[in-house]
Amino acid sequence: MKAGIVNVTGYAGLELARLLLHHPTVELTQVTGRSAVGQRLSEFFPHLGETDLIIQADIEEPVDVAFSALPHKASAAAAVPLLESGAKVIDISADFRLKDVGVYEEWYQVTHPAPQLLQEAVYGLPELHREEIVKARLIANPGCYPTSAILALAPVADIIEPDVVVDSKSGISGAGRTLALTTHYAEVNESCQAYSLKGHRHLPEMLQEVNGARRKVLGGNDEIAMTFVPHLVPMTRGIHSDCYSRLTVSMSARQLRERYRDFYRNAPFVRVVEQPPQTKHTWGSNYCVIHPTIDERTNRLVVLSCIDNLVKGAAGQAVQNMNLIMGLDETLGIDASPIYP
Amino acid sequence: MKAGIVNVTGYAGLELARLLLHHPTVELTQVTGRSAVGQRLSEFFPHLGETDLIIQADIEEPVDVAFSALPHKASAAAAVPLLESGAKVIDISADFRLKDVGVYEEWYQVTHPAPQLLQEAVYGLPELHREEIVKARLIANPGCYPTSAILALAPVADIIEPDVVVDSKSGISGAGRTLALTTHYAEVNESCQAYSLKGHRHLPEMLQEVNGARRKVLGGNDEIAMTFVPHLVPMTRGIHSDCYSRLTVSMSARQLRERYRDFYRNAPFVRVVEQPPQTKHTWGSNYCVIHPTIDERTNRLVVLSCIDNLVKGAAGQAVQNMNLIMGLDETLGIDASPIYP
Amino acid sequence: MKAGIVNVTGYAGLELARLLLHHPTVELTQVTGRSAVGQRLSEFFPHLGETDLIIQADIEEPVDVAFSALPHKASAAAAVPLLESGAKVIDISADFRLKDVGVYEEWYQVTHPAPQLLQEAVYGLPELHREEIVKARLIANPGCYPTSAILALAPVADIIEPDVVVDSKSGISGAGRTLALTTHYAEVNESCQAYSLKGHRHLPEMLQEVNGARRKVLGGNDEIAMTFVPHLVPMTRGIHSDCYSRLTVSMSARQLRERYRDFYRNAPFVRVVEQPPQTKHTWGSNYCVIHPTIDERTNRLVVLSCIDNLVKGAAGQAVQNMNLIMGLDETLGIDASPIYP
Amino acid sequence: MKAGIVNVTGYAGLELARLLLHHPTVELTQVTGRSAVGQRLSEFFPHLGETDLIIQADIEEPVDVAFSALPHKASAAAAVPLLESGAKVIDISADFRLKDVGVYEEWYQVTHPAPQLLQEAVYGLPELHREEIVKARLIANPGCYPTSAILALAPVADIIEPDVVVDSKSGISGAGRTLALTTHYAEVNESCQAYSLKGHRHLPEMLQEVNGARRKVLGGNDEIAMTFVPHLVPMTRGIHSDCYSRLTVSMSARQLRERYRDFYRNAPFVRVVEQPPQTKHTWGSNYCVIHPTIDERTNRLVVLSCIDNLVKGAAGQAVQNMNLIMGLDETLGIDASPIYP
Repeated sequence: MKAGIVNVTGYAGLELARLLLHHPTVELTQVTGRSAVGQRLSEFFPHLGETDLIIQADIEEPVDVAFSALPHKASAAAAVPLLESGAKVIDISADFRLKDVGVYEEWYQVTHPAPQLLQEAVYGLPELHREEIVKARLIANPGCYPTSAILALAPVADIIEPDVVVDSKSGISGAGRTLALTTHYAEVNESCQAYSLKGHRHLPEMLQEVNGARRKVLGGNDEIAMTFVPHLVPMTRGIHSDCYSRLTVSMSARQLRERYRDFYRNAPFVRVVEQPPQTKHTWGSNYCVIHPTIDERTNRLVVLSCIDNLVKGAAGQAVQNMNLIMGLDETLGIDASPIYP
Repeated sequence: MKAGIVNVTGYAGLELARLLLHHPTVELTQVTGRSAVGQRLSEFFPHLGETDLIIQADIEEPVDVAFSALPHKASAAAAVPLLESGAKVIDISADFRLKDVGVYEEWYQVTHPAPQLLQEAVYGLPELHREEIVKARLIANPGCYPTSAILALAPVADIIEPDVVVDSKSGISGAGRTLALTTHYAEVNESCQAYSLKGHRHLPEMLQEVNGARRKVLGGNDEIAMTFVPHLVPMTRGIHSDCYSRLTVSMSARQLRERYRDFYRNAPFVRVVEQPPQTKHTWGSNYCVIHPTIDERTNRLVVLSCIDNLVKGAAGQAVQNMNLIMGLDETLGIDASPIYP
Repeated sequence: MKAGIVNVTGYAGLELARLLLHHPTVELTQVTGRSAVGQRLSEFFPHLGETDLIIQADIEEPVDVAFSALPHKASAAAAVPLLESGAKVIDISADFRLKDVGVYEEWYQVTHPAPQLLQEAVYGLPELHREEIVKARLIANPGCYPTSAILALAPVADIIEPDVVVDSKSGISGAGRTLALTTHYAEVNESCQAYSLKGHRHLPEMLQEVNGARRKVLGGNDEIAMTFVPHLVPMTRGIHSDCYSRLTVSMSARQLRERYRDFYRNAPFVRVVEQPPQTKHTWGSNYCVIHPTIDERTNRLVVLSCIDNLVKGAAGQAVQNMNLIMGLDETLGIDASPIYP
Repeated sequence: MKAGIVNVTGYAGLELARLLLHHPTVELTQVTGRSAVGQRLSEFFPHLGETDLIIQADIEEPVDVAFSALPHKASAAAAVPLLESGAKVIDISADFRLKDVGVYEEWYQVTHPAPQLLQEAVYGLPELHREEIVKARLIANPGCYPTSAILALAPVADIIEPDVVVDSKSGISGAGRTLALTTHYAEVNESCQAYSLKGHRHLPEMLQEVNGARRKVLGGNDEIAMTFVPHLVPMTRGIHSDCYSRLTVSMSARQLRERYRDFYRNAPFVRVVEQPPQTKHTWGSNYCVIHPTIDERTNRLVVLSCIDNLVKGAAGQAVQNMNLIMGLDETLGIDASPIYP
């Protein structure tokens, strides 16, 4: 089974390369990257010493599955010919995540290059959409923040007040490899800051999925009022999301955790734990670790959720999706333990 | 004017030493530390090369003002003889912060050694209690998290729904110099985690003061339902608190910030800013930087507040209180700019 | 094939557990740890959610291979009964590294509990001693600093002046999981410091092996005058060693690197590279990346060498040794790519 | 006394602003920065909330002293008109550090724009050149690495073998505020690396000064063979330099430290200490902390030297020079203690 990566030169592409180079049944045969055409991948990323791949301008030979890690808009444009060539496509960008093209164009301020594919594309969060994923040929791989927050909220989407705060803390690699003052070491080290207070592009994605899970049970059309505040914290990897709401039913913390365990009983990468987790409990792995609890003084729901933003939040989840659409075991090549400390 | 520090060997004591050694009108004449009696302060802390002070077992000569940086209970016990000697006392511990001895004993699980002083003690947040501070002889220096959260909430305490979430992110020095796995470098570096989900001791302090500010205007006895979730992030210093609630009145973000500016018009260390601040904008300084805003999609109040936990969150605020009780200019010796980057 | 880990509760033991739990042909059946007897391994280390192992007091059932990650002296004592039970033993401690018991007792200030095993034990650096390792039943797994420095110097041991400086920079995990001020987050973050200027215990190990490689070619008994200065730098993992000496023969940097490539042509985990490496080029992997060069202004040899101190510097190398003594492929279970960024 | 900063928008310029805004006798009246003309300084650097200065294109009104923090070549060009206006000039760039214009042009690969000023300019390391500094009107402020290494080597320049290795570890702010992959957070965090193995521009500066100190005593023309290898370590501030050589005379470590103490008896910012220092012992301060010792096994000289690269390594030293040329107390405005932890 042959795989290709479009735009291997960013962090999501690089992480895909790491995972696919060691995948037991998939062979990474082509990688592209406009800025480094002709370079060996092992020269561009010297730690990948074991591969002979040359970075190409485009996917030139047929592949069975292609991952696109291009920026939004460019990614959808690249997906079209790949689909036409017969490849299954897993799009790491945001282009196929939002079902409503109007919402997409409002948040991303571009015209969607392939709106005809939106209904076909499946939102690639296997814990919610496994059945559709296995039949799909185009996967919209979820954003990093949404992965952490949706997994934290989905099991209770139908029993919460429609009023939610998501306060997320992310490592700096989430901002990608593009140079900026907000990723300049001396500016962000030893510092914590919130950003995108006026609205982060991952918000509509969270709303679509949490509202979707809610309506699936409750029906109707009500919308959750969700405030999402992302923060940068001085670490390379990891997202810690705190989700605050109130339950509409009475439940102990123990019962709550049972509900989560039941919800994720078939999800090999979700761990529901009894103690507040560290992001480091997921470092380098595809796990999402969730600690749901209730603040007894105020009867408030608090759900903590940790992932590695580049694995479960990007490349690992993409491989999980690939495994599913190619009929492989869901955990193949991504079952590594977190690396600690 | 002579000053002494009880328990100079922890981080609050050390930071007090740094500030007092450079204070223009106060002379640090005595420092104590049970574990290091007889050592030179400059040997115990080699970076303090400029002082000849010897670490003592107790404050032996009279001082005009004494700072106690002992753990709770021990600190109150140490305060009594100091007050009797005629010194003004600034207590860095939690012992005199809570007016209700029952609340104190419930949260700290000890018997209060000097409950008779609780009513006399003044909660040393100058931005709220300046008038009482200048007349006091015993100051309860606020906790680090409460300083950041109370300053963020006080200007709107009377115009919010009685339902508040405080999500705080703290550097590791907040946990002190005592050895523990939760402050062991390899355990906490490259990681973010929540803790004390069942209730952090700083919560009653926040409630007392925010409820107090609320009742001062609104009267009555209603209590805010406040959830406080503290987090450790991998940096040495800094607290970033996000406070979430809803306004009971209609107001633009611009009007909101005007309200804050007006509230703090005489507060030399509070900066109300137009952009989300970084904790690093306060590093090494006594400033609290606050960004209040409104999430327009949900009409939710979001207030961001940053301090250096060891300065405005501990030693700097203690010196600010000292300046006030000794009749000095409030900013004397603590007007340094933040150090950036 | 069954394996056991003695003292799984430190960082070397933990890293062994991570590697062995995923090893394709070896089953980790027992783990010990005096401080946590009876606890589940997945409770003690919550990120290891996938295992059911219970922490025992001792290895109770026979194993084919045992790893001892106890402190020195205790480790040698534990090795004896394991060997007697028929297990092969890989000792992570320093107990069997130094052939000369007098040197051991001088540096470690203890009486060696099993000096009779010293000659039989093989210094487990496969790149130098593969042939002896495959026949051994007791392996002395090298120290982290020595691994980086010996691999940097061995290829030129016979063509350098007997005068060497090794300046090493290590991440904090090298100091282990035991609490100490020197591993307390706030003390070491944002700081760099040298330590053990009067002599670090890894020095005799480096001397034994580099002198050994030298004498193998040159014969004689001359001793290299080696100064070793270790440093702590604020990162969790990684060692960067700079080795300084002078060549006794004339050689270009290009020829020098050819010599290294030739020396390591059969070493799957050593990469000789054209550019100065980052420790991060080895993160989480068993690779040692070496950049040998010549400072043309002074005609000085400079060799840079990077490893992950917990993998090639401890647990990964131990598994590499296990693979060799058990007749397995040398890279089995430890062929992961470094994780970057 | 009025001061101006040319190019306040980089880290050296920013640090100068911080120090000058609090200097007791100097008033910072003008700051320039081509990329931010017309912006308030407190808007460009939000943590500098206390100043009303507007960033200008050029120094427009006369100042008594001007600091130029422009890149090399541009800085010398800017210095000429400032000198002509009657201002004393402290140049933070490398333009006036090297006395030999040929050496400058070889290392910096540009034509020197004002070679006529080279002989007049004084190398602004007060510990070596205080007497010339007080009479100068143009100061070449030393580089950060050279400050740490020259102060470490000057006291023994005349009693060492002419063979020296300087292995330096620097925080990332040393690379400035210009965006680059080598200062991108995710690339450098959790990593250590050497760079400029083929020759770093600070080497000729170290050679000039150490050779100068050597010849002052020994006469003659011999040149030290010096290898300098700089490293990036993941911290914002701080340089730790290890200098290796051999003494030509016999001396105990104790005598050695006495020699250093004697050499620096009038240097208020140099501390000779008995234990290996941390860079953090200098954080935010103008101190250089030096620990000279002898490796008794090899009889090798090892000198450790720590500074804050932005203070003693740049802006603090510039203010120290300003104090001297303006006839002020050398320590005015820069006597802050290091901030620890």
